[in-house]
Amino acid sequence: MTLQQADARTAAEPIPVLAVVGVGLIGGSFAAALRRAGQVGRVLGVGRNGPSLERARELGLIDEAVGAAEAAARADLIMLASPVGTFGAILAEMRASLKPGAIVTDAGSTKVAVAQAARAALGERLACFVPGHPIAGAEKVGPDAADPCLYTGRNVVLTPLPENAAADVARVRAAWEACGARVLEMDTVEHDQVLASVSHMPHFLAAVYVAQVARSADSRQRLAIAGTGFRDFTRIAAGSAEMWRDIFVSNRAAMKAELAEVRTVLDEAERALDRGDGAALEALLEEAARFRRDWKTGR
Amino acid sequence: MTLQQADARTAAEPIPVLAVVGVGLIGGSFAAALRRAGQVGRVLGVGRNGPSLERARELGLIDEAVGAAEAAARADLIMLASPVGTFGAILAEMRASLKPGAIVTDAGSTKVAVAQAARAALGERLACFVPGHPIAGAEKVGPDAADPCLYTGRNVVLTPLPENAAADVARVRAAWEACGARVLEMDTVEHDQVLASVSHMPHFLAAVYVAQVARSADSRQRLAIAGTGFRDFTRIAAGSAEMWRDIFVSNRAAMKAELAEVRTVLDEAERALDRGDGAALEALLEEAARFRRDWKTGR
Repeated sequence: MTLQQADARTAAEPIPVLAVVGVGLIGGSFAAALRRAGQVGRVLGVGRNGPSLERARELGLIDEAVGAAEAAARADLIMLASPVGTFGAILAEMRASLKPGAIVTDAGSTKVAVAQAARAALGERLACFVPGHPIAGAEKVGPDAADPCLYTGRNVVLTPLPENAAADVARVRAAWEACGARVLEMDTVEHDQVLASVSHMPHFLAAVYVAQVARSADSRQRLAIAGTGFRDFTRIAAGSAEMWRDIFVSNRAAMKAELAEVRTVLDEAERALDRGDGAALEALLEEAARFRRDWKTGR
Repeated sequence: MTLQQADARTAAEPIPVLAVVGVGLIGGSFAAALRRAGQVGRVLGVGRNGPSLERARELGLIDEAVGAAEAAARADLIMLASPVGTFGAILAEMRASLKPGAIVTDAGSTKVAVAQAARAALGERLACFVPGHPIAGAEKVGPDAADPCLYTGRNVVLTPLPENAAADVARVRAAWEACGARVLEMDTVEHDQVLASVSHMPHFLAAVYVAQVARSADSRQRLAIAGTGFRDFTRIAAGSAEMWRDIFVSNRAAMKAELAEVRTVLDEAERALDRGDGAALEALLEEAARFRRDWKTGR
């Protein structure tokens, strides 16, 4: 049986051949969710990490591991779920062999830099690239963390490019909806500003805080009595350093603007602490508590 | 039946009469856990908030609401679970009527200031006060949040005073162990330094961050796409503003020292961000991720 025959056998599904670049938590969960929903035929896995690809195959997340060019030639939908810093090189490698009608999307946490990288790498084929970002994740990494329910009830933001065909955007939307996600659309700049605030900044602050605890002379004793507040506040700091490095670097401008605002409030809070000003501290704490309690998402 | 008769009816339990000052999450859960363990006879509730006391009685957390002086006269064990800033006045009110042999303990999150307040308020009766701190809590507040399982598997730190009798410390330890907690002992200064790091600082940073998001012009849109990272990182910021105000003010010196260390790492991270220095960012992120993943508490 040729590769084309293997792919054709499964042509009854909405996505006959799916390729996932990066078969960890994000990519593996996307494949698993689409498979569970009966939306996908054959799943190709692409990645630099041999053991991860082999593990993804053992787990049934992918059917076979292939190179980027072969994935481009065979897949109807390609999901880039590797660190965002890798997208440019991967898209450049795929460009010449992309199957006609194929759609490429991604799960990168920043969108301005991703759109720029796609534009540079794909040139006149840019229209096939529909940028996206699932607002979901966990502190776990790797194929073993993949979960077909990861996206259930989660938000996915698509940031379509002016070049995209409406039908292609609709197909990416349908794939995410089949994973159980709610799909929103925003423009790339707006996405990056909002995400810098509600996603990237918490990770940045949690990592800074955990590194500070780690460097303390009595760090082991501190951990021994740390409780649930510490647990929840620091959970995201256990995430992939490589992935978050790329996110911070590629969303640097929005992060810096947001961090300046955080420092303004931090300075205000520290001044109140210095003065022992209970009223000012309580006002700030109450402002935060009310806002957080009012967050009605049921999560 | 006189009050003394009502109390005597239940004298078979290890704690014939328990008084809880502050019948919210912490105090209510302590009473509920001891009652479930069959350790307590009658439970008296003390508080400033009439509706909370009535609700605690409806829920069966307390048997009756009484004033501080009456609680002191009748109780064998008194748990102070109101904000730490209230302890001095409550202990002063109780001092003259404390039943012989009664033990007073507390659940305050700082211990140096609490020990000072107890010393000032109790004078020659100081020996009956055994300071303690359960490392447990939740973003919920009030008697409805009380949970007999809140302390199961959690750490409780006792910081005995030089004046305490070993038998009294042992009785407080036994009460917490009956609640399912693990009991550790530390001195008051060490406790406050460690807690400033692993408990108070996360709350301070989470509140600063949430207040900054709350003040943004597009705060509603930010919340609309915030995900699980935001949820976990900010959970503690929903806690009681009054309680945390008192904690911050009473543990101000340790907080300030810790905050200076956090700012050192924050500055380092921001400089790396400014330079777009992916290697430096990744090193910091990896340091935090390894430390957090190595936290083996099963929680």
